[in-house]
Amino acid sequence: MKLYSYFRSSAAYRVRIALGLKGLPFDYAPVHLVKKEQQAPGYRKLNPDALVPTLVDDAGHALTPSLAIIEWLEETRPEPLLLPRAPLERAWVRSLALQIACDIHPLNNLRVLRFLVKEMGLAEAQKLAWQRHWVESGFAALEQRLAGDPHTGAFCFGDAPTLADVTLVPQMYNARRLDIDLTRYPTLMRIDAQATRHPAFSAAAPEKQPDAS
Amino acid sequence: MKLYSYFRSSAAYRVRIALGLKGLPFDYAPVHLVKKEQQAPGYRKLNPDALVPTLVDDAGHALTPSLAIIEWLEETRPEPLLLPRAPLERAWVRSLALQIACDIHPLNNLRVLRFLVKEMGLAEAQKLAWQRHWVESGFAALEQRLAGDPHTGAFCFGDAPTLADVTLVPQMYNARRLDIDLTRYPTLMRIDAQATRHPAFSAAAPEKQPDAS
Repeated sequence: MKLYSYFRSSAAYRVRIALGLKGLPFDYAPVHLVKKEQQAPGYRKLNPDALVPTLVDDAGHALTPSLAIIEWLEETRPEPLLLPRAPLERAWVRSLALQIACDIHPLNNLRVLRFLVKEMGLAEAQKLAWQRHWVESGFAALEQRLAGDPHTGAFCFGDAPTLADVTLVPQMYNARRLDIDLTRYPTLMRIDAQATRHPAFSAAAPEKQPDAS
Repeated sequence: MKLYSYFRSSAAYRVRIALGLKGLPFDYAPVHLVKKEQQAPGYRKLNPDALVPTLVDDAGHALTPSLAIIEWLEETRPEPLLLPRAPLERAWVRSLALQIACDIHPLNNLRVLRFLVKEMGLAEAQKLAWQRHWVESGFAALEQRLAGDPHTGAFCFGDAPTLADVTLVPQMYNARRLDIDLTRYPTLMRIDAQATRHPAFSAAAPEKQPDAS
């Protein structure tokens, strides 16, 4: 398999973690988002929406975006499972992942930030306030949900990594880049520290990727 | 089951369609987003992120957000299936739904628009340009994907509704409210027209809801 990735992309980071947790080797194809390589016609053939990641399987099928890729991995390479077995528990884990993937991350996507500055005329300080606002309000709700739920263990759900941790850790990395005070989210901090000791999470870290700069 | 909904919410509209397709009756609990009823402490107990929809099942479990609710319905009330059976095909249908749910809809969420105007100081015309930009760029990619894929039929995938249509139709409703020229997306228009003739889609329409105004 081949993963089109950018080292700092949260969405690509999620897929790197999932591939690592399932023990699946892959070739790394860098797509430099700041240099706009995702706009190149060759890449847009694989991914008309011009986003990373794209995973190309051994038969040449291009899969995107991150959560659909991870659900596909879960269905085709089930060991270890990244979702619990009981439907209500699966819904809970998916809800944690989707809260990050739908309510936080898309607002701080690189193309969105560019549009705010270039087309909407926001100053850099306003852009930063925007970024922080969505991470902070999203994390406050996530902290409340995780701190109050009996399923929360060493990881977001129990004591093994799930899709929720796969989504949380890249968002924590992003929050650190924004200098957000994470001590307000003690449960998120504790889980993030636990997860980053796991070799699959650690190998997927942005600074370990071949295109890190 | 009880669905906390707002008639114009795209995310609530998706769940109304899915419940209808699966033939599941539900009580309708309106949450008036413009009056900020989603911020009320009682509702935030069910949904700490203060968004609609929330589905409360017959045992009192609160489920959220829309895509996690629909995956749960798919796992617990499988007939009719809203996802194909083959993993690659499931990934394709999920990718269409996620492109709308992650890359278009969150940017035009009511709270995001409010923040742009009240905190970022955008004028109403800028806000409208922002909204249209994300729908138009997302729809252009979606049109290209659907027009070019052999699986596209009367609906997004084949000739029966799937999760992709459940997500597309509310976004088309939203685009019409923004006066977007939809003739540039002939495949989306054709599928939307087909879907809205289906009784489950038609019963879920915003203007048919008890809180429509």
